[in-house]
Amino acid sequence: MKDLKLCQKQSPEHKTIIEVGGTKIGQDLTVIAGPCSVESEKQTVETAIGVKEGGATMLRGGAFKPRTSPYAFQGLGLEGLKILRTASRETGLPVVTEVLDPRDVSWVCEYADILQVGTRNMQNFSLLKEVGRANKPVLLKRGMHSTINEWLYCAEYILAEGNKDVILCERGIRTFETYTRNTLDLSAVQAVLELSHLPIIVDPSHATGLLSMIEPMSLAAFAAGADGITVEVHCKPEEAMCDKAQALSIPMFKRMMARINKLNECMAEIKKLPAAVEQE
Amino acid sequence: MKDLKLCQKQSPEHKTIIEVGGTKIGQDLTVIAGPCSVESEKQTVETAIGVKEGGATMLRGGAFKPRTSPYAFQGLGLEGLKILRTASRETGLPVVTEVLDPRDVSWVCEYADILQVGTRNMQNFSLLKEVGRANKPVLLKRGMHSTINEWLYCAEYILAEGNKDVILCERGIRTFETYTRNTLDLSAVQAVLELSHLPIIVDPSHATGLLSMIEPMSLAAFAAGADGITVEVHCKPEEAMCDKAQALSIPMFKRMMARINKLNECMAEIKKLPAAVEQE
Amino acid sequence: MKDLKLCQKQSPEHKTIIEVGGTKIGQDLTVIAGPCSVESEKQTVETAIGVKEGGATMLRGGAFKPRTSPYAFQGLGLEGLKILRTASRETGLPVVTEVLDPRDVSWVCEYADILQVGTRNMQNFSLLKEVGRANKPVLLKRGMHSTINEWLYCAEYILAEGNKDVILCERGIRTFETYTRNTLDLSAVQAVLELSHLPIIVDPSHATGLLSMIEPMSLAAFAAGADGITVEVHCKPEEAMCDKAQALSIPMFKRMMARINKLNECMAEIKKLPAAVEQE
Amino acid sequence: MKDLKLCQKQSPEHKTIIEVGGTKIGQDLTVIAGPCSVESEKQTVETAIGVKEGGATMLRGGAFKPRTSPYAFQGLGLEGLKILRTASRETGLPVVTEVLDPRDVSWVCEYADILQVGTRNMQNFSLLKEVGRANKPVLLKRGMHSTINEWLYCAEYILAEGNKDVILCERGIRTFETYTRNTLDLSAVQAVLELSHLPIIVDPSHATGLLSMIEPMSLAAFAAGADGITVEVHCKPEEAMCDKAQALSIPMFKRMMARINKLNECMAEIKKLPAAVEQE
Repeated sequence: MKDLKLCQKQSPEHKTIIEVGGTKIGQDLTVIAGPCSVESEKQTVETAIGVKEGGATMLRGGAFKPRTSPYAFQGLGLEGLKILRTASRETGLPVVTEVLDPRDVSWVCEYADILQVGTRNMQNFSLLKEVGRANKPVLLKRGMHSTINEWLYCAEYILAEGNKDVILCERGIRTFETYTRNTLDLSAVQAVLELSHLPIIVDPSHATGLLSMIEPMSLAAFAAGADGITVEVHCKPEEAMCDKAQALSIPMFKRMMARINKLNECMAEIKKLPAAVEQE
Repeated sequence: MKDLKLCQKQSPEHKTIIEVGGTKIGQDLTVIAGPCSVESEKQTVETAIGVKEGGATMLRGGAFKPRTSPYAFQGLGLEGLKILRTASRETGLPVVTEVLDPRDVSWVCEYADILQVGTRNMQNFSLLKEVGRANKPVLLKRGMHSTINEWLYCAEYILAEGNKDVILCERGIRTFETYTRNTLDLSAVQAVLELSHLPIIVDPSHATGLLSMIEPMSLAAFAAGADGITVEVHCKPEEAMCDKAQALSIPMFKRMMARINKLNECMAEIKKLPAAVEQE
Repeated sequence: MKDLKLCQKQSPEHKTIIEVGGTKIGQDLTVIAGPCSVESEKQTVETAIGVKEGGATMLRGGAFKPRTSPYAFQGLGLEGLKILRTASRETGLPVVTEVLDPRDVSWVCEYADILQVGTRNMQNFSLLKEVGRANKPVLLKRGMHSTINEWLYCAEYILAEGNKDVILCERGIRTFETYTRNTLDLSAVQAVLELSHLPIIVDPSHATGLLSMIEPMSLAAFAAGADGITVEVHCKPEEAMCDKAQALSIPMFKRMMARINKLNECMAEIKKLPAAVEQE
Repeated sequence: MKDLKLCQKQSPEHKTIIEVGGTKIGQDLTVIAGPCSVESEKQTVETAIGVKEGGATMLRGGAFKPRTSPYAFQGLGLEGLKILRTASRETGLPVVTEVLDPRDVSWVCEYADILQVGTRNMQNFSLLKEVGRANKPVLLKRGMHSTINEWLYCAEYILAEGNKDVILCERGIRTFETYTRNTLDLSAVQAVLELSHLPIIVDPSHATGLLSMIEPMSLAAFAAGADGITVEVHCKPEEAMCDKAQALSIPMFKRMMARINKLNECMAEIKKLPAAVEQE
């Protein structure tokens, strides 16, 4: 792992803290929640209010949707970004949203608080360089086909352009298992904690594609040491335009958050106990 | 998943509890610990005493070792089994040990409290049928190449022969990632909880092959709802004859257990709160 | 790849030739054909006559079927082996058949000319040792989850017991692709040719699971340098008890053989031309 | 596979033929050869002359290199494209070169005869749409993590923008096998021939990463029915700036081409014989 100069941890305490809208990512519990895609102002604002009540610290929502088929709904684009800003104003939640094209980075920055680079674009080096020059933090999802090593090199691409604020997000890798959409690799959380100073969060919604898995995998992610999660929540899941099988309703999200909060109180206690293996 | 008649959950409360040496697997916290292979009476007894003090509920140790190379140490065989019994007598811990050959099942039963079927033998149907006729519980590891569905069918092979006591063990699957030995699939825990009434435990030692990963992955396993773990512990890890890079020392194991116990107290509280998604 | 003492190639010309019923495997074109499972004498003899006419050099057929579900047809056992012998007597074709259990090896040897170890049993070390002590050649299928290195170690297990006659068979590995059942890894043919002196054949039927793929993948296998193929043929594919979607009819097999023969004449010419890279 | 309106084969004879510089891709033998990256005019022209003599029909060479590390050589950019044009003028070979960024498509078209979209960008939908609007054919490599179905949808993205000339290129997928860099999936050739009218070629250099595998996998690709290959050739492989272990020298390439030509003469004869399974 030579050449990972900027990405690499220099000491056990070395940790990047990224402050966005009052949350210190890498230090505080980070919970990013919201719809897969922005469909309407009503849907987005209603969901934002719900997740804010539930304890989310950030709002997610896609205005540009990378879809397998060219004929599938591709997102509302600029209109979607405007809706996200409205929802942000109503709730105070910062906005995380995906950018797909290097040409869009500069103007999307006017609407987004965190730029997301999706799994299919992890090695889109033009896009990485462009977000590396932006003045917004970047949430870099792991490629579904990528080793941890390659993923860190992609973070290095962003850091090398001058942007210090990169958040890594494990979202499942492709395997032969078909019960879940992908296989959530929670060992990657510990790997990142060992290798890098960058915050690491987990996306159980895309990793599993199954509603029933989101809560247990979120709890497992925090127990494994993750700095946060990002989950899909929809005010009316049955009407969602994409990924409806994996969107939590607002009541579900609130119940999950009660459990997560309890676990994280406990994890704070646990972390005071000596670790089995001291990190070097 | 037709044909999984015996393996399949009939109702949300349906759960098999297997009582072995005072522990109720599927209900109580199950912690199986011990060396990868039985090397000597001293090593085995010393490790057994250590893990017992740390709170393990069962002793593991291999007398027959399935090794990639025919020239690698293949285990002590009968002598190893006798040593395990001695260690069991000294500590009161029941013994879990692997059986590789259908011809060995009947006599290994005289030394083992639980028969383990390893990942390479998951679809060794002759062996499955033979342990299905034994009067000891069976710990069935997931094939590193197997879907959850195929794994449950292998449990069905055992149940169909009349042995009702099968414990499933997730131990990592093969993927392209090379940082860890295999990729621990913790979603499989929730999948088994949804599909089957059989207890499900996790092996973070073989899944990750990395000492530093065992504690975080054990905590994550319990947070995901696992009924237990099986981990490699050695009284002198630096002298272990196999897998030395992944054996916890006894002090490490004790520190890990303190954290696990704290987490599980918390999980007991968490399970009283309503779940995000009610199981049907 | 240390420890592969017996399996390893000692010089570019080092090649094991295994003579079975007049065919020199590793030198002559080897075509093993027959039904997935022996269902009746009529079906087996009829198929054997058909594949003999088409140019097959050996008859395959399963008497013991490793099946995912315990409730699926498990093969005719001894009765199946007797039918295979009858078909062999009628046609002069030697018989290749799978053995699943170490306890069966000695008596199956009385009916089989080549013992097959299947993909699920590649690392069933008890079985490997037992066939290593048998006086019949062994066809060792690659584990669907196995690296080439591990596969060669399994051959080494057999060789180390004294049986010099091992034939390797590539049959596809598990990947995320779902169009084909598994992914046929034809690079493994060249890898084996580089690393080992053992003959290497290819099973396009199980690798792809698709009727339409068998001919092109067979041609590709020979072009890649394979010593032979093993394919499923059934006199009445629509009535096959297993894998009916991938069984060639006898006329299909004959058409394929005409193409294969033409290709192999050409390959003989091609091999006289200097290779791009001389093997060391 | 609904929604693959434009990509899908309408009848057994339906085939897109793309004429570039005298070669009819999809009908004639297509052999694209050249260095991994353009390093200098001398190297590129010398290699181009060599591959032309050997029988290549097109010149490949990277001016923009997608590299894992941001600190690795990223290609000569515009200078590299100019060198490729010079080499093209000297030899008459059309140029295939990769484009990474949608902002570069229009001006790269002035230098390239075919635009290549690389494996890491297969699902870079902005880039796909942009090349879909270009007036040059597109060589679309399969994502190393992609199913055949997803790959065809990416071709559909290009076709849907109006560009009818898409060539598909199988280049290996990620699996657990480590002997080869990736696993060449030759079944994908037959799959594309069954599903789509677009030409399909194979890249054995990137798939295997091993010099010794290029010839046997090229022969296998043609035997499987591929319309062509793309291979790395360098006039001085030992001085190559990237992927030196997999670049053929010019004499190696010429020897390979002699074998390939012989095979393809034979394949022309073979295709006149009735196929085992008639395509519907």
